[in-house]
Amino acid sequence: MSETSSTSSVTGNTYTIPSGRDLDELSHFIRNNKNQKVVAVQGLGFVGTVMSLVVANSNNAEYAVVGVDRATKDSYWKIADINAGICPIVSSDPLVLEFFENTKAKRNFYATYDSEAFSYADVIIIDINLDVTKNKDDLGNIESYDVPLAAFKKAIESIGQVCKEDVLILVETTVPPGTCKKVVYPILVENLKYRGLPTNKFKLGHSYERVMPGPNYVNSIKNFYRVYSGINDESADAVEKFLKTIISTDEYPLTRLKTTESTEMAKVLENSYRAMNISFVIEWSRFAEKSGVDLYEVIDAIRLRPTHANLMYPGIGVGGYCLTKDPLMASWASEQFFGLESGLQSSVKAVENNDKMPIYSFDFVINILKQHDRKSTNIGLLGVAYGPGIGDTRFSPVEDFFNQLSVHFDNIKCQDPYVPFWPELDLEIETSLETFFDSSFDILIVTTGHRDYLDNDAIYKLIGQHNKEIIIIDTVGLLDLHKLPKQFLQNKNFFVLGVGHNEEI
Amino acid sequence: MSETSSTSSVTGNTYTIPSGRDLDELSHFIRNNKNQKVVAVQGLGFVGTVMSLVVANSNNAEYAVVGVDRATKDSYWKIADINAGICPIVSSDPLVLEFFENTKAKRNFYATYDSEAFSYADVIIIDINLDVTKNKDDLGNIESYDVPLAAFKKAIESIGQVCKEDVLILVETTVPPGTCKKVVYPILVENLKYRGLPTNKFKLGHSYERVMPGPNYVNSIKNFYRVYSGINDESADAVEKFLKTIISTDEYPLTRLKTTESTEMAKVLENSYRAMNISFVIEWSRFAEKSGVDLYEVIDAIRLRPTHANLMYPGIGVGGYCLTKDPLMASWASEQFFGLESGLQSSVKAVENNDKMPIYSFDFVINILKQHDRKSTNIGLLGVAYGPGIGDTRFSPVEDFFNQLSVHFDNIKCQDPYVPFWPELDLEIETSLETFFDSSFDILIVTTGHRDYLDNDAIYKLIGQHNKEIIIIDTVGLLDLHKLPKQFLQNKNFFVLGVGHNEEI
Repeated sequence: MSETSSTSSVTGNTYTIPSGRDLDELSHFIRNNKNQKVVAVQGLGFVGTVMSLVVANSNNAEYAVVGVDRATKDSYWKIADINAGICPIVSSDPLVLEFFENTKAKRNFYATYDSEAFSYADVIIIDINLDVTKNKDDLGNIESYDVPLAAFKKAIESIGQVCKEDVLILVETTVPPGTCKKVVYPILVENLKYRGLPTNKFKLGHSYERVMPGPNYVNSIKNFYRVYSGINDESADAVEKFLKTIISTDEYPLTRLKTTESTEMAKVLENSYRAMNISFVIEWSRFAEKSGVDLYEVIDAIRLRPTHANLMYPGIGVGGYCLTKDPLMASWASEQFFGLESGLQSSVKAVENNDKMPIYSFDFVINILKQHDRKSTNIGLLGVAYGPGIGDTRFSPVEDFFNQLSVHFDNIKCQDPYVPFWPELDLEIETSLETFFDSSFDILIVTTGHRDYLDNDAIYKLIGQHNKEIIIIDTVGLLDLHKLPKQFLQNKNFFVLGVGHNEEI
Repeated sequence: MSETSSTSSVTGNTYTIPSGRDLDELSHFIRNNKNQKVVAVQGLGFVGTVMSLVVANSNNAEYAVVGVDRATKDSYWKIADINAGICPIVSSDPLVLEFFENTKAKRNFYATYDSEAFSYADVIIIDINLDVTKNKDDLGNIESYDVPLAAFKKAIESIGQVCKEDVLILVETTVPPGTCKKVVYPILVENLKYRGLPTNKFKLGHSYERVMPGPNYVNSIKNFYRVYSGINDESADAVEKFLKTIISTDEYPLTRLKTTESTEMAKVLENSYRAMNISFVIEWSRFAEKSGVDLYEVIDAIRLRPTHANLMYPGIGVGGYCLTKDPLMASWASEQFFGLESGLQSSVKAVENNDKMPIYSFDFVINILKQHDRKSTNIGLLGVAYGPGIGDTRFSPVEDFFNQLSVHFDNIKCQDPYVPFWPELDLEIETSLETFFDSSFDILIVTTGHRDYLDNDAIYKLIGQHNKEIIIIDTVGLLDLHKLPKQFLQNKNFFVLGVGHNEEI
């Protein structure tokens, strides 16, 4: 594809990326909404787009929302889609489309690639990505990691160059703790100074979302607890006032923390906590397999205790955009911004352990196939998304697993109800479970725990009808042996990661 | 003290340790309870004694209970106390004494050092201790650890030598997963064979308590979820039947797991999970201190999420009998019994990190005192027990902390409402907070989070009356700065572990 065009992943429409500016359309949109406060949202990803919709659908304020992203191959189509009246997010949550249609009726949502948008904004919400780079050795150990800030700084600069002197800037991006004060604030001050404007009037705060793409996508922003902070009291007050106009704070009261470092830390701490909980259970999965223990029943028994309810289950690995990087981001900040010499070693180790899980899952599968003398075979994979019920394949553990598997096997078919196309592997995926089962395979591997498979016992029926003796390997603990056809109980062709085979006395 | 006598830690009574056997008294007790099933409890520690009381106070069965412990200096006094009508456990839970008095009225609880007791038993509950030894280098890193099984094996042998052929043996001791089948079972079989008895009639099961010494001591055994298992179905059935006679299983249903390895693993897994959660937050405490963040408010904000409710707070360290050893016990078993080459590295690391916490807390204190130029000073320590609301000092983190402190300071006074005497340090402890505050100190360090200190704001009033400028260092997050006298807000003489001092913009 040309670098001068951008194709919508929703409609397949291809748009030419503009080379000029967007001043006319932009000012036209602003004039048409002249009685409303302008909110600019920087970054139209999984968070920014839905955040824009939530702001544009405020219950107790009227906002004109401008979504800003870059005129690049990867991003421009979202801008063009929005302005063409097409929602750039496909979701199982009907509120996403409903909110989008509302903005069309109210004409209060416009998208642009022109940073001039920030000059009109009373509030600017920063929802751009900030990535972590990892370097690993051959064994998968993390040798180093970095948070390259150049693009992020440039994005802040594009705001500082044009923003109003009394703008409220709300950072929602997951950033290394310390970023608001040590990176964002100085850039804004420098730019305002350069422009001859006062540097003590803008407000700067941080508040992170806890967005869950899936059936509660909108409500995970609109109806959930929020933590916020400001670089000073005026900033925190301004953030609070704004959030109260878009979030149901009566039901989900806001929590103000003392500093921006505190909320920045809260975000990466909560994700590190999840990553660490997953990492913890990995070793126990290996122990369970070795000792003939069903770790699932053990964990269920323990989770009855409220003090142990966050204990996680075994699985193929950790995916998604957050848990795979946030602990490193925190550790990086602890060293680079605050001189904590050792960093956060345990949190880094958790990411390292988790990143190795798909490779272990592959070993688990290979060992079973070796024991059954199935070296050349047809394999069916159920699920490629990084988690149950979502279509997101970013950093999916199934990717590493698939790549390993494809070194040894030619014939691997994948199914996922939410992923018609797997961008990371450039692969068409079968979305129909029935059609998938029409093909012939010897090995069925469950790689994502989509609950859809269990609806009306669909999966059990299809396995029962599949007229071939197959081995089933469940890497996510989705299937129930006792619902499978009886032969699996008898011939032991069913294996679950984290579950050993026990001996009786 | 002589090795031939044993002194009660409750009354101070000294008993001569008998050298002969206890056959007459024992058979007398059995005869007097001849219509009742006999339950022998091996080990009269914090679990075994209260377990004995719960069994002897069953709602829907009548048991004669024989508690068995060793005729040693450390243990014999418990036997003598019980038979003299004195409860060997002092507890804030009134049910302990009530249950003990009931057994005196019913005459259905007897204690002995004679293993002949097992010959009468229909059920034998094993509640003896099993310790882990650790070897550390100068930096506190764990170089090796071991679970010496000799004493445990001997205890099992003493059962096998005399037990009934159809006895039910219920292991409650925390053991390395695999112990019931790989250690207990073979010893019993060997002894029964030697005695010419059938080896397929006894039942062997495992079920662990989740006992919490403190105000809910009895109910933490009687009214709480239980997990159980047997080496085969008949054993599991027998365990279930027995547990139903002593535990409120209607309200707290039992969970049967498939194998004894499963319940053995469940116990060490749940304690390892706690240890790991504590270890996780250590690094973040250091990060918070460096970056001016109040980790307590961050954690409170995160714990609003049910998926993150088990997140722990910072603190001086981990103590008690379980969390400091169980992860090592699990790792040891994974290697020694099941050949998991790497063991459970993360769980071992968690213990190592946790064991270092008191040393860090000491460094935290020393740095503050250096900054305040207080090299020679009087120090007051509030709390020496390993946790809030209990009088148990076993493996208390305050011990390492105190030892470090006493290298540098001569004048350290300790207070603890639950610990009149600190056995590990052979130290008398002041139990009255008022009397403690009569003495003069410059530094007050809160080392155990006893809620008693906050009752009627006692601690705040006493600090207010204390006519000396003091520094307060809170290592467990107990005190509220805003309830302290105003000068602490102004002169910043109040420090909390896990809380940094923030800068304002």
